[in-house]
Amino acid sequence: MEVVFLGTGAGVPSKERNVSAIALSLLQEQNSVWLFDCGEATQHQILQTNIKPRKVNKIFITHMHGDHIYGLPGFLSSRSFQGGNNPVTVYGPKGLKQYIETSLTLSETHLSYPLSFVEVTDQMIIETEHFQIYVQSLDHGIPCFGYRVVERDKPGELLVHKLKKMGIEPGPIYKEIKENEYVIVPDIGTIYRKDVVGEPKRGRIISVIGDTRFSKLHRKLANHADLLIHEATFGKDKQNLAHRYYHSTTLQAAQLAKESNCKRLIITHISSRYQQKENEQLLQEAREIFPNTELANDFSKFTIT
Amino acid sequence: MEVVFLGTGAGVPSKERNVSAIALSLLQEQNSVWLFDCGEATQHQILQTNIKPRKVNKIFITHMHGDHIYGLPGFLSSRSFQGGNNPVTVYGPKGLKQYIETSLTLSETHLSYPLSFVEVTDQMIIETEHFQIYVQSLDHGIPCFGYRVVERDKPGELLVHKLKKMGIEPGPIYKEIKENEYVIVPDIGTIYRKDVVGEPKRGRIISVIGDTRFSKLHRKLANHADLLIHEATFGKDKQNLAHRYYHSTTLQAAQLAKESNCKRLIITHISSRYQQKENEQLLQEAREIFPNTELANDFSKFTIT
Ligand SMILES: [Zn+2]
Ligand SMILES: [Zn+2]
Repeated sequence: MEVVFLGTGAGVPSKERNVSAIALSLLQEQNSVWLFDCGEATQHQILQTNIKPRKVNKIFITHMHGDHIYGLPGFLSSRSFQGGNNPVTVYGPKGLKQYIETSLTLSETHLSYPLSFVEVTDQMIIETEHFQIYVQSLDHGIPCFGYRVVERDKPGELLVHKLKKMGIEPGPIYKEIKENEYVIVPDIGTIYRKDVVGEPKRGRIISVIGDTRFSKLHRKLANHADLLIHEATFGKDKQNLAHRYYHSTTLQAAQLAKESNCKRLIITHISSRYQQKENEQLLQEAREIFPNTELANDFSKFTIT
Repeated sequence: MEVVFLGTGAGVPSKERNVSAIALSLLQEQNSVWLFDCGEATQHQILQTNIKPRKVNKIFITHMHGDHIYGLPGFLSSRSFQGGNNPVTVYGPKGLKQYIETSLTLSETHLSYPLSFVEVTDQMIIETEHFQIYVQSLDHGIPCFGYRVVERDKPGELLVHKLKKMGIEPGPIYKEIKENEYVIVPDIGTIYRKDVVGEPKRGRIISVIGDTRFSKLHRKLANHADLLIHEATFGKDKQNLAHRYYHSTTLQAAQLAKESNCKRLIITHISSRYQQKENEQLLQEAREIFPNTELANDFSKFTIT
């Protein structure tokens, strides 16, 4: 599980930061990549990475502001042009389907793969084979959603040493034991799975909190996340400005991470008013409250173990 | 008058070439810049140049394919965000207005300047103070237009040495002479303007021929152009492919330049199948027919004197 930041700026692209997009690489888990937001030139940013557009099969949009969606028609078209055949589902607020369909239709774009849309709403739960995604409304002036991606717990591994001790040697019987509540092994007896498997592996949790004012209500999204990705458009001294424009500060992002007992925080969506040399200060503001914080730059990559 | 190529690729962006956009800088002539096409990430390309988005007041779109229009919503939004106040007019085929308005409306974008639309049709003439723009249909499978930009002729300069010889010294009288057919100068007599001004300065002609199959009909657009910008998606050996996909070859672009007595040809819209090292060969193919040819790369700049 790897997070790649494709665009970490706010509102407009700058030379340093493109507009919003985050890739969640689940290649090991399920051979696919998910996108969160898709600002203009996301496909251009992807060209600089090893992400293959045809592997992207889900796109989650936080809200309809242009800096979060204007890259969608181009990304979807180029994915088709490059021979992507497997389906894509786009999740996002009302209006997203109309935006994409109008763009594709008027540009006479005919996709080589099925494209479907899911209109998200507050408190929705999206179920996939390996993940549950909880959707919650944020506070951004227009409909805007946070996504809490929860990996399903994995059953524990077979305790081979224990089985061997009981006289059960590796073979097809191991699969039987792992897949059933109990198995009767000739000459040995009834083996209960719970006795011969280790602890189930807790699924990882990643929370993506898009553009929003700070709110304690977002603890529900962030609670015990292994990784919280939170916007921090402004520095801590700009709390009024952040509030007025429905955004958050470095300090507020850190506060949510702390109050939600997150393991790690990454702040992104940095205003273009901040120069590269100010990144360190923004980061320190957050670390004062929540030490395990990083500030994302375009192409920053983080592994979640 | 300067032409800056912002995107010179075909269909999809590559690491070498962005999708289509050309800036015609008329800063000296009228303190503005015009765009021809606006593929995705045109605003990103502009960030790498000295072009100011607020100076762009006309955008001409050749056709509705995504690689020619997907940068419009972002460019128009960012121009607003960066404080552009003066109006913009967008010229292009039917559907363009709906595309832009849908994108801006659904993304809740409120522009800081008036935006108007002109739906172009075959044989239309667009009149501006310093230019006439002739519009002609191309052959690209969907409605597609070429633009012939003709600078209005400028009246000749006053022949100062001649006036002085006649005993007329510089002063307000010079303006009188320049602005009237004749002026009666006390003690000297009737001065006819035609006798004391030089040759009128012929306006320059730039033809932008977007995606199209080759056609002799396009001579009307290209005729005696100081600069012909023509697509050359394919090399000369791919004429069948070019025909099938409604595109042109290097050789065909050169042929039109030659038959139309153009002064200079620039080929662009190069397929991503060609690597950088093949540029020289593509260029030579065109030069065999029309020696004064250049092949555009992203950020190539040409001055038209
Ligand atoms: Zn926003
Ligand atoms: Zn085209």
